[in-house]
Amino acid sequence: MLNQFPDLDRLFHALADPARRAMVERLSHGLSSLSELARPLTMSLPAAMQHLAVLQAAGLVRSEKTGRVRTCSLEHAALAQAEQWINARRREWEHHFDRLGDYLKTLENEGDQHDPDI
Amino acid sequence: MLNQFPDLDRLFHALADPARRAMVERLSHGLSSLSELARPLTMSLPAAMQHLAVLQAAGLVRSEKTGRVRTCSLEHAALAQAEQWINARRREWEHHFDRLGDYLKTLENEGDQHDPDI
Repeated sequence: MLNQFPDLDRLFHALADPARRAMVERLSHGLSSLSELARPLTMSLPAAMQHLAVLQAAGLVRSEKTGRVRTCSLEHAALAQAEQWINARRREWEHHFDRLGDYLKTLENEGDQHDPDI
Repeated sequence: MLNQFPDLDRLFHALADPARRAMVERLSHGLSSLSELARPLTMSLPAAMQHLAVLQAAGLVRSEKTGRVRTCSLEHAALAQAEQWINARRREWEHHFDRLGDYLKTLENEGDQHDPDI
């Protein structure tokens, strides 16, 4: 089976963990060091580093080390890709419901026309 | 660590697979039988059933068996939950950039005021 969007596999996998979502949430407010990201999650730096690696592999986060500090930033374009996929499903779903509504209205009108009491 | 949104773990995990995304995509156009869902994915019915179980556990899909046919439908509310989480991150990110823009403008204005050449 052809996977047209391998990036989406990694993106949604990265977002399927509460610690990684918390990191993305923090980074959506601006730059942060890795230790600042790890602190509220009460996890060790190596554990935070592992989550960061998953986020980086998904293209969601970029990081740079200067001296002993690793600064992380959100890659908004990747998040937008996930958003676009979900938005597209919603639009299809809404379109489906609109068509269903039109069809039911047509049936109702046809029913009125054939109703002998009217 | 407190996971405030355990549903999001299951939701994003369910969407991290191309076969399951293809099923959701098909169901966003309307009801479908499980065998109809499995056909374009060239997978066996038991394999499709396993993917369906993951989608159902995430609350993304509902299914009902009538006779030998299992009919599946999309649960739009669950998809909306994932959409809301991503939208919230985008809004925060945009807000952060707006504030950054304001700050840079302030610095620019202050620079103009102190520039001896003006």
